[in-house]
Amino acid sequence: MSEYLFTSESVSEGHPDKVADQISDAILDAILREDKHARVAAETLVNTGLVVLAGEITTTANVDYIKIARETVKRIGYDNADMGFDYRGCAVLVGYDKQSPDIAQGVNEGQGLDLDQGAGDQGLMFGYACDETPTLMPFPIYYAHRLVQRQAELRKDGRLPWLRPDAKSQITCVYDAETGLPKRIDTVVLSTQHAPDIDHKALTEAVIEDIVKPVLPPEMLTAETRFLINPTGRFVIGGPQGDCGLTGRKIIVDTYGGAAPHGGGAFSGKDPSKVDRSAAYAGRYVAKNIVAAGLARQCQIQVSYAIGVAQPTSISVDTFGTNKVPNELIVELVKRHFDLRPKGIIQQLDLLRPIYGKTAAYGHFGREEPEFTWERTDKAEALRADAGL
Amino acid sequence: MSEYLFTSESVSEGHPDKVADQISDAILDAILREDKHARVAAETLVNTGLVVLAGEITTTANVDYIKIARETVKRIGYDNADMGFDYRGCAVLVGYDKQSPDIAQGVNEGQGLDLDQGAGDQGLMFGYACDETPTLMPFPIYYAHRLVQRQAELRKDGRLPWLRPDAKSQITCVYDAETGLPKRIDTVVLSTQHAPDIDHKALTEAVIEDIVKPVLPPEMLTAETRFLINPTGRFVIGGPQGDCGLTGRKIIVDTYGGAAPHGGGAFSGKDPSKVDRSAAYAGRYVAKNIVAAGLARQCQIQVSYAIGVAQPTSISVDTFGTNKVPNELIVELVKRHFDLRPKGIIQQLDLLRPIYGKTAAYGHFGREEPEFTWERTDKAEALRADAGL
Ligand SMILES: C[S@@+](CC[C@H](N)C(=O)[O-])C[C@H]1O[C@@H](n2cnc3c(N)ncnc32)[C@H](O)[C@@H]1O
Ligand SMILES: C[S@@+](CC[C@H](N)C(=O)[O-])C[C@H]1O[C@@H](n2cnc3c(N)ncnc32)[C@H](O)[C@@H]1O
Repeated sequence: MSEYLFTSESVSEGHPDKVADQISDAILDAILREDKHARVAAETLVNTGLVVLAGEITTTANVDYIKIARETVKRIGYDNADMGFDYRGCAVLVGYDKQSPDIAQGVNEGQGLDLDQGAGDQGLMFGYACDETPTLMPFPIYYAHRLVQRQAELRKDGRLPWLRPDAKSQITCVYDAETGLPKRIDTVVLSTQHAPDIDHKALTEAVIEDIVKPVLPPEMLTAETRFLINPTGRFVIGGPQGDCGLTGRKIIVDTYGGAAPHGGGAFSGKDPSKVDRSAAYAGRYVAKNIVAAGLARQCQIQVSYAIGVAQPTSISVDTFGTNKVPNELIVELVKRHFDLRPKGIIQQLDLLRPIYGKTAAYGHFGREEPEFTWERTDKAEALRADAGL
Repeated sequence: MSEYLFTSESVSEGHPDKVADQISDAILDAILREDKHARVAAETLVNTGLVVLAGEITTTANVDYIKIARETVKRIGYDNADMGFDYRGCAVLVGYDKQSPDIAQGVNEGQGLDLDQGAGDQGLMFGYACDETPTLMPFPIYYAHRLVQRQAELRKDGRLPWLRPDAKSQITCVYDAETGLPKRIDTVVLSTQHAPDIDHKALTEAVIEDIVKPVLPPEMLTAETRFLINPTGRFVIGGPQGDCGLTGRKIIVDTYGGAAPHGGGAFSGKDPSKVDRSAAYAGRYVAKNIVAAGLARQCQIQVSYAIGVAQPTSISVDTFGTNKVPNELIVELVKRHFDLRPKGIIQQLDLLRPIYGKTAAYGHFGREEPEFTWERTDKAEALRADAGL
């Protein structure tokens, strides 16, 4: 009978922080297309009428940064100042510097104190998987993403022509304390930017009927489920005009929606020599394979690194009592089956490709597109066999 | 006998992301000094030779933003381009807009759909406390902060004159799986920016003797403890020249070092009508009082909000089996003893004061300075009595 609540949120591709993430990753992809060995840390700030590109890039690629920034904003749908942003009319300032040679010597193979390819920074990263959904993601973040994805779909195909790019969703789920599984949805919050000519009542009805209900599993909605649609009452001003956006400011939306801890490092704009990104992807890969192998129903892994050092400084695993084999054995299996040095991760997950644009909205994890190599469960069988299951 | 590792990190006030946080909070404080009812969302980007101030500010205060930005950089110690940044010579661009009136109507009392003061945004926030240290903070983040604080102290008082402002620390701790308590320190990582004229060996020795050993509890250091000091081998280029800094990019350093989940919302630069900040502070206050009351040894609370709505959309509590009374009762006690509407939080914790500068480095939680009202345990006795303990 005992229950508890858990809440996660997501944002659409038109949310200003996500606009920044998508510009950063578009620039990373453009560089990787020409220069696999570039070092990229591309940060973006967007505000009313303004895009600032800053960070550290060392590359031989010849990339038109301003053009990529404008094209990304256009693809998202900000093509008119009425919408809060116009890809044609915004200023784009470019202030990239090169990677510090002091950092580069720690990261480059054969240089620095560790001759292996060292981690691009210190830090801690978590990976997580659980059996709440078929993609082995927690329920609330999985469906929060689907809501804003649906918002973008109906906006782009014109079915709800008054929708505008900026949106946020939030799902509060009731969990069964015994099983740890979601039982029903308590509250859905959805705010979407809109044209000035639709009133709040019509908008609320359309959002519930055409966005919320088609996406959420009907058996999880009850007569008590609350829908809070555009609860400020008005959301015409949106995008970078309503809120300044920065790369790396939606790191919980990007990962597990708070269902697992986060190490703090952002993903977008970073090439995979940065363990903030690559080791978090590897962590998801490890955790997902452990759950897929049936070694546990829920798995969280923490890894950490020292800058310039290849081997992780720590690896630990938590299975919250859902494990079929001892946790110590799982740690052993992780070390045996996964090379968690930066170079090992990059090779195993084939990360030196221009695949990052797609990751920069609707979550880096739980995705089914082929680029998301870290979602493969190709190690599950070997793990299972090695665990004697 | 069973053990596991856990790692947390911190950064010094000279780290570029923290420079951005400190500028954002210095601007917030300057505004609050003149105008308690201002709406402030001050974002900052710092890069080689550049400070960008952007975001949304609605205030009657008359504040010299550029001067505050320069003074903050000076106080941190970047007063020469040799150091990676010079407060006199950097460019400062100011691009603040006003708070969107569509958001303001949801937040202002007596406007919008909910006539109470609504939450400034949707979102989820966590609070956490545990009995690993006297301040009821997890051990690794607590000591990671102390390491970089010590680095700044020895730099500023001139004892180690070759130290420069930028630094990072990381602690990997061995935990006893039975008790869940820290047993010993496995690895310490410390990277500090330095003058070019000190060699790696001398630096390593001085850092271990003068920074690491005076700070860490000696009984937690063993013959096996590893020290990784400046593992790239060189760290002369630092600060905003070595790495672009953004407000809100050290949210795990700001909170519990990954020992608890994070909702994703940043703190610095935000006035307390933004629940990202005020409700995370309230969450800490609640969790700390529950542990201080002896209701549990470890407590995590999640709250969530819908924009424009005063009452939280969810409240949940996890005590990881350390509770002395049922979790359901703890949730009840929280609702009874704490007003978690934005206005209630602001009043209870007295948040409309210029107290934010100090929070912007070395952690928002576990601090003993009087400004940190959310660290008070003044509700513990009443909670204990009400729980019948
Ligand atoms: C509420 S804003 C953050 C606060 C803002 N920086 C300020 O100064 O008030 C965060 C996000 O909420 C969404 N948002 C903007 N305007 C809104 C409105 N009028 N109603 C609901 N959501 C809105 C957008 O996705 C925006 O990026
Ligand atoms: C390694 S940098 C992040 C990566 C960087 N954006 C790049 O493009 O390589 C992150 C932080 O590490 C620290 N750092 C900078 N240079 C370093 C060095 N040479 N050795 C160790 N740590 C360094 C600074 O605190 C800096 O803010």
